[in-house]
Amino acid sequence: GQTDVNVKILFLKIFVLLSICLISFTTPCYGGNILVFPVDGSHWINMKVLVEELHARGHNITVVRSSNSWYIAEKSPLYTSFTVQIKENLEEFFGKYLKNHLKVCRTDDVIQSTGVIRALEIVKYHDSLCMPHLIDAQYDLVLTDPAVSAGVVLAKYLKLPLVLNVRWIPSGEGHFAVAPSPLSYIPVPGSGLTDKMDFMQRIKNLFFHSIIVLQQKFVVGPHYNALCDKYIEGGCDVFSLLQEADIWLFRSDFVFDFPRPTMPNIVYIGGFQCKPAQPLPADLEQFVQSAGEHGVIIMTLGTLVNALPAEVAEEIASVFAKMPQKVIWRHKGERPSTLGNNTLIVDWMPQKDLLGHPQTKVFVAHGGTNGVQEAIYHGVPVLGIPLFFDQYDNLLRLQERGAGKIILLADVNSQTFEQALKEVLHQESYRQNIERLSRLHRDQPIAPMDRAVFWVEYVMRHKGAPHLCTEAYKMPWYSYYCVDVMVFLLSAAATHLEIYCNHLGEIMFCTA
Amino acid sequence: GQTDVNVKILFLKIFVLLSICLISFTTPCYGGNILVFPVDGSHWINMKVLVEELHARGHNITVVRSSNSWYIAEKSPLYTSFTVQIKENLEEFFGKYLKNHLKVCRTDDVIQSTGVIRALEIVKYHDSLCMPHLIDAQYDLVLTDPAVSAGVVLAKYLKLPLVLNVRWIPSGEGHFAVAPSPLSYIPVPGSGLTDKMDFMQRIKNLFFHSIIVLQQKFVVGPHYNALCDKYIEGGCDVFSLLQEADIWLFRSDFVFDFPRPTMPNIVYIGGFQCKPAQPLPADLEQFVQSAGEHGVIIMTLGTLVNALPAEVAEEIASVFAKMPQKVIWRHKGERPSTLGNNTLIVDWMPQKDLLGHPQTKVFVAHGGTNGVQEAIYHGVPVLGIPLFFDQYDNLLRLQERGAGKIILLADVNSQTFEQALKEVLHQESYRQNIERLSRLHRDQPIAPMDRAVFWVEYVMRHKGAPHLCTEAYKMPWYSYYCVDVMVFLLSAAATHLEIYCNHLGEIMFCTA
Repeated sequence: GQTDVNVKILFLKIFVLLSICLISFTTPCYGGNILVFPVDGSHWINMKVLVEELHARGHNITVVRSSNSWYIAEKSPLYTSFTVQIKENLEEFFGKYLKNHLKVCRTDDVIQSTGVIRALEIVKYHDSLCMPHLIDAQYDLVLTDPAVSAGVVLAKYLKLPLVLNVRWIPSGEGHFAVAPSPLSYIPVPGSGLTDKMDFMQRIKNLFFHSIIVLQQKFVVGPHYNALCDKYIEGGCDVFSLLQEADIWLFRSDFVFDFPRPTMPNIVYIGGFQCKPAQPLPADLEQFVQSAGEHGVIIMTLGTLVNALPAEVAEEIASVFAKMPQKVIWRHKGERPSTLGNNTLIVDWMPQKDLLGHPQTKVFVAHGGTNGVQEAIYHGVPVLGIPLFFDQYDNLLRLQERGAGKIILLADVNSQTFEQALKEVLHQESYRQNIERLSRLHRDQPIAPMDRAVFWVEYVMRHKGAPHLCTEAYKMPWYSYYCVDVMVFLLSAAATHLEIYCNHLGEIMFCTA
Repeated sequence: GQTDVNVKILFLKIFVLLSICLISFTTPCYGGNILVFPVDGSHWINMKVLVEELHARGHNITVVRSSNSWYIAEKSPLYTSFTVQIKENLEEFFGKYLKNHLKVCRTDDVIQSTGVIRALEIVKYHDSLCMPHLIDAQYDLVLTDPAVSAGVVLAKYLKLPLVLNVRWIPSGEGHFAVAPSPLSYIPVPGSGLTDKMDFMQRIKNLFFHSIIVLQQKFVVGPHYNALCDKYIEGGCDVFSLLQEADIWLFRSDFVFDFPRPTMPNIVYIGGFQCKPAQPLPADLEQFVQSAGEHGVIIMTLGTLVNALPAEVAEEIASVFAKMPQKVIWRHKGERPSTLGNNTLIVDWMPQKDLLGHPQTKVFVAHGGTNGVQEAIYHGVPVLGIPLFFDQYDNLLRLQERGAGKIILLADVNSQTFEQALKEVLHQESYRQNIERLSRLHRDQPIAPMDRAVFWVEYVMRHKGAPHLCTEAYKMPWYSYYCVDVMVFLLSAAATHLEIYCNHLGEIMFCTA
């Protein structure tokens, strides 16, 4: 019965905690030298978690950052930084991008495919990297997030083993570069599709894939090729370099993502950044408790959004004002006039501690990977307002499992928002489903973070992991797909048939 | 330096040992009821290791066996047995098979493809299973080795979650049933190919694959379909049932096998049966020590071979007699007249303890999975004499890494055998390479056996793992390969072209 299950879960928790302790105490510290080439913004948030863990285990870390970095501090007890001088203002660029985006985009489908612009813009910044300076130091490994793949070129330049902390690569989702990805059931990011597609949806999926392939070939590829030509003797192809990476620490798992083919050197670390909730600051705890049995709604739209359009904020605030719940809203724009007494506007919130708080009933979020993984870890249903990049796709995965609901920013008004919010709050299935995902996610032989650190250290111990990398990437496409074999066999068959026909003709001629 | 490496290895050993202890002590015992449907012979050897572990963790186990079982005891403290009455004599069948085989088979290529006969013969035996008797007991799970897939049908019949302890399925290697397997770099078992193939080898690989597909469709399939029709309402397709299995505990890993695409529900447990060596019996230890600096050669040809052809045994014995090493030879036939004083003939040997003994220099073996995995685990180079089934392929994987050498039984004479034996003994690279494989194999975040038990218990905890199973298996092949989409797009393009041509014709007509 229920007691049984509780005892099991208790045992499991003890087991997981003790394992973590044991692994932390007994894992040897190799004191490796790791060169980290991160991506700024929210990508840095989870790279930093990994950097913290690697630092704690005694490794020396050097982080490459740009002089106008948004999130990556120059001075840190965790790492030595290597600063590259850059003029452009990243934050300004994203501000402009978002404004345009909110004006023109009214369908979910376009949201994702524009994400590639980002990678392009950022790679231009990193093009000014002065790589030779890094050679003096001896590193064991390059750890990089290949959403911007300059770090991948850097590893090639320095002839070092390469570990990726990855979900996105410049041409789209990471899996597409290394694992067989049948388009019949693997939705291309941005298509807004799931792993169950009808005929027309499969056509759409193929169409989106074609766009990505063309973008890779004609838009993204040339920029990286320029980088390759500049630094690598004889040039290089950044997509081949990605395929040669020793280990892909993939920020996903199959509780979150749809099941699909994978490769021996892909290690799933989805939710590796999640930690048990810490107590809230006293004033926040008091506010949360004051909600009583109705509980709390929390809302945040992530790191890129400084201000929601004022009219949208007004509509949302008016709905919150009507709810019996208390609301904590991370909002930076003008204070909405419709704001209720139950709504606390904050500049920043301890998101994971709030998500792990038993009072929290619904998480209104933009659907960034970090937030969605934390919602799964803590088992809080999500009302998602996707803005760009992978956010719609992330939320779609929750929605497909009945653990979340999507409402597009363009469709948000007081009526639609109220209806959606109440549905996620009151329909019991949302909570049941996200709690089931949470149980599955937490039930792993070792914690994702320990897995991540293990494989980073593994690559250092063995100076790479080439035995996990398939032959596939070394073949031309016509050999990989056996097109040459097929053409040969078909022409052999045709020749044979011709001889046979001639022979038959002779016979018929003779007998005639 | 070397001290550093030793300290690291020591730390690692302590870590692994402590982890195992901790996991053993803290893993909760769910006391699940597990129905095991094993395959007899060497397959039972490693299924039994898993059964022992599951028993030790408090699960109740029922094992289905045949009345004339070869290896599976009726009474055991580990399990309750369920005996099926069967008339045919399995051992006699294999004896006949081997004799024929040694007469006709002179090339490595044919060795494997005949393996399918075995599955066919055995499924006939199990066809007489009286399934309804098993229904009375409530099981949480069916654990089976699908080399004979009757247990898979049984799971369907009993509507139970299914975990496979697998490497082979009736139609060949397990991966081919569930994971994308490009024939351009994934060698079909029996083809004698590796993951590096030239054009002609890829044609050969395609040819072998075609044979397997035809066998599956016209030879193996119908037998299982008969079983399905008999027990499952509306029939079933055993290959679809395999695809629906919750977890594939795969008896391989990528230290042993060539890297290839895999699936989320495939868990690699290669070498899970390997354990640290125990001290040898006193007389054997004395014999081993008497070899002095020259060390010991051990030889065994596995569980199926009662007697090597006498003339081959004579040749081998004469070579052993000339060596300065001591030899321990598991041999059941007549005592060869050429036997030297240095050669000890035994009925049975503590294989893993001998492999783990520092005196052991070379392992002369038939290349069964268990033996090859143990050679990797203990780091002993292998001189392989493959007989049938997967043995050639197993040995080929060692040979490709320079950790072993193959000599075909048909080619064995005193000259060839001596040359090969001395090469493996004296060429330092063999030992270096197998020791490298051993280091890689032992460097895992958790031990393969713990991983196996974790996933068996995981399936019981969550009553299956359907979230790890892709949509691919539910699609018709033309949808999976997007053939329907392609045909549609091509005909749309053709229609468009026709309209355009007509239009062009009109224009030309008008202007003319």
